[in-house]
Amino acid sequence: MTQLNQLGAREAVRRMAEGSLTSEALVRACLERIAERDAAVGAFVDLDPEKALASARTADRSRAGTLCGLPFAVKDIIETADLGTAYGSPIYRGHRAVADAGCVASAREEGAILLGKVATSEFATQTPAKTRNPLDLERTPGGSSSGSAAAVADLMVPVAFGTQTTGSITRPASYCGVVGYKPTYGLINSAGVKHLSHSQDTVGLLTRSVEDALFFVFGEPAVNRLVRDDRLPRIGLVRSSQWGHASAAAISEIEAFITRMAALGAQVHNITLPQELELLAEEQGRLFAYEARQSLKHEWLTARDQMSPRLIQRLAGGEGITAEEYLEMRRRVEEGKRKTALLFADADVLLYPAADGEAERSMIDSGSPRFGALWTVLQLPTLALRVGTGADGLPIGAQVIGRHADDVSLLHAAHLLASKAGFGQ
Amino acid sequence: MTQLNQLGAREAVRRMAEGSLTSEALVRACLERIAERDAAVGAFVDLDPEKALASARTADRSRAGTLCGLPFAVKDIIETADLGTAYGSPIYRGHRAVADAGCVASAREEGAILLGKVATSEFATQTPAKTRNPLDLERTPGGSSSGSAAAVADLMVPVAFGTQTTGSITRPASYCGVVGYKPTYGLINSAGVKHLSHSQDTVGLLTRSVEDALFFVFGEPAVNRLVRDDRLPRIGLVRSSQWGHASAAAISEIEAFITRMAALGAQVHNITLPQELELLAEEQGRLFAYEARQSLKHEWLTARDQMSPRLIQRLAGGEGITAEEYLEMRRRVEEGKRKTALLFADADVLLYPAADGEAERSMIDSGSPRFGALWTVLQLPTLALRVGTGADGLPIGAQVIGRHADDVSLLHAAHLLASKAGFGQ
Repeated sequence: MTQLNQLGAREAVRRMAEGSLTSEALVRACLERIAERDAAVGAFVDLDPEKALASARTADRSRAGTLCGLPFAVKDIIETADLGTAYGSPIYRGHRAVADAGCVASAREEGAILLGKVATSEFATQTPAKTRNPLDLERTPGGSSSGSAAAVADLMVPVAFGTQTTGSITRPASYCGVVGYKPTYGLINSAGVKHLSHSQDTVGLLTRSVEDALFFVFGEPAVNRLVRDDRLPRIGLVRSSQWGHASAAAISEIEAFITRMAALGAQVHNITLPQELELLAEEQGRLFAYEARQSLKHEWLTARDQMSPRLIQRLAGGEGITAEEYLEMRRRVEEGKRKTALLFADADVLLYPAADGEAERSMIDSGSPRFGALWTVLQLPTLALRVGTGADGLPIGAQVIGRHADDVSLLHAAHLLASKAGFGQ
Repeated sequence: MTQLNQLGAREAVRRMAEGSLTSEALVRACLERIAERDAAVGAFVDLDPEKALASARTADRSRAGTLCGLPFAVKDIIETADLGTAYGSPIYRGHRAVADAGCVASAREEGAILLGKVATSEFATQTPAKTRNPLDLERTPGGSSSGSAAAVADLMVPVAFGTQTTGSITRPASYCGVVGYKPTYGLINSAGVKHLSHSQDTVGLLTRSVEDALFFVFGEPAVNRLVRDDRLPRIGLVRSSQWGHASAAAISEIEAFITRMAALGAQVHNITLPQELELLAEEQGRLFAYEARQSLKHEWLTARDQMSPRLIQRLAGGEGITAEEYLEMRRRVEEGKRKTALLFADADVLLYPAADGEAERSMIDSGSPRFGALWTVLQLPTLALRVGTGADGLPIGAQVIGRHADDVSLLHAAHLLASKAGFGQ
């Protein structure tokens, strides 16, 4: 029998709406799972069980909102008024934000229950959080949405907000074997999210199924349309120089997945990434550094001694880039967007690795975000899902990439691919 | 003899660098002007003269940074650590932010002196601040960057940060007869700026000359290049249905300006705004409402009784817009950007009204932002400057609009046009 904490978001909301489940029972099951497991996993950084249960009881009485009674977790780079927000940095230890972020307040308005805050790496950059990979506690869950991916993977909560500026949803989703949805830039409101690289910072979701991501953002009507068309999408398999960083297992599992999809009737096109986009993927780091260096300027000037050496080095990489050079990069991004539209000429979605391979056996390195860089700077919607299993028995993920602002088509396509991939996503 | 508070930003920095002016003297002159005038004008909402003078003395000793010793003011929608930030709302009366916004910290790193916070309308929307137009105290200075424009126009400070989400830099610049520079979206860092409509919120500057805006953002090298080319730009005069809202004086002054520029050798092309862009200008309000409704959701849920009826009505306008409809709007914005690129086929810059006309004789209505809507949603750089004088003797402004991320070319072109316009900008 399915434990309540194992329920997906949509199924839980459905049961609560029909009266066969209370939010209080669901929240209690999640809290019990956290109590049982989080000492080992370390996904949560702030939690107020009594407040969450009180909110759940309120939801059970009101029965109002499209997400009524559904518990969700929030990456600690996202502000909340009644739980701490430390942005993964000792500089903000004990900090309490003055307001809920837009995405948090909007979810609460729909009746969802803020369960707790989950760990982020330092200011959503690469210095890891305390979180461990629930599939193997000696491994990183990936970053920077470490707690979001781990909590969802470990059945502590059905859905968590994460953010991505390079690969911070995609990689932890892949490492933890869950679904990571990075929407079109700006779709989920980013007010109250600590800025890092503002042209790339994107709020997204970690869930255990594509359906749940679709449900949470677009609601039941969009999920209902899922069944109407089950032709597999035309897939553009994008090859680039970054594939040189992918493990043998990652490459063979992705290729095997593609072969299976083709056998099931999907049209597959091999696409070689154009040179301009290769260059843009490389340049993404400079754009990041220019923006992040200014976004974190106050902390740089007033509390640099509490920044990690890795972050200091990363921000220093933005030094000397002029405003004019920055604008040139922004022009190349716009050209890149136009170029990217052409990749979809014969493809409904693109497919690309999500990470170098399985989660690394490390707690001081959260793996490389590189495979997310290009799609993040291009502001395209992406969905990371599990497509295979590596040599150590851990998940291998891939990204499905959609057209700009065509998120529902992407999620529909990804749902079909996920259903064929066979990992219950 | 020029009073010190009348000095422009570049000239002041030059004098301080050569040792003929101290920051302390400059800041003192600005503070004296504020003491003399601000009871009437009401530009400032928070000020700490002793702290500003102390910072000035530090700058005089260190002589470090490209803006060393230069006082600047900050719109109160932008966070500062050592002055209050109330976002123009009674909800946040007395609020102190935890950090300086990225743009503030970056200016301070370059040695600039935070002089004080200047008034914004409520959350940078349309419910006015207390500020009066320094050119006629019975009139609005425009909004939402009301204090920024008034303080700069009234010689209280040479430069102030403002923000624009529809017309909030362009209109007050026009009403107060100063320069309003809205850069390409994202050029000036927006971390620590309260979000309203995140795909449009743009940090910019109010100054008394184009040169000062160029200097503040791009530095002395970009200003030095100004002299090398004084051919007037090719101007695309954009006609649209919005011209129906412009006063007779605004139309005749803009047309007279264009005629003069043509007589001086500028090529002028008349451009009729394509229908898609007409529709986008209309739709901008819906996009705004969708985003703002979520950005201010926390305040909506917890303190609606302290929101103005006008803001409540504006946010209610976003109700019922689905995530899918929002994405459709975002797709039309991207199509609009492609369409707009064609307007520049025979034009270096576009020219468009900045406001309906002269500043309105009202303190409860700050005028319409409509002429900024299209260029803001398109994320293009714009520069508002004075081109003429209305029937009541107050400024008539126009916007010069540049290509995406080609801000320096825009500012160079606008500098030439301003020098011919004859208002000392």
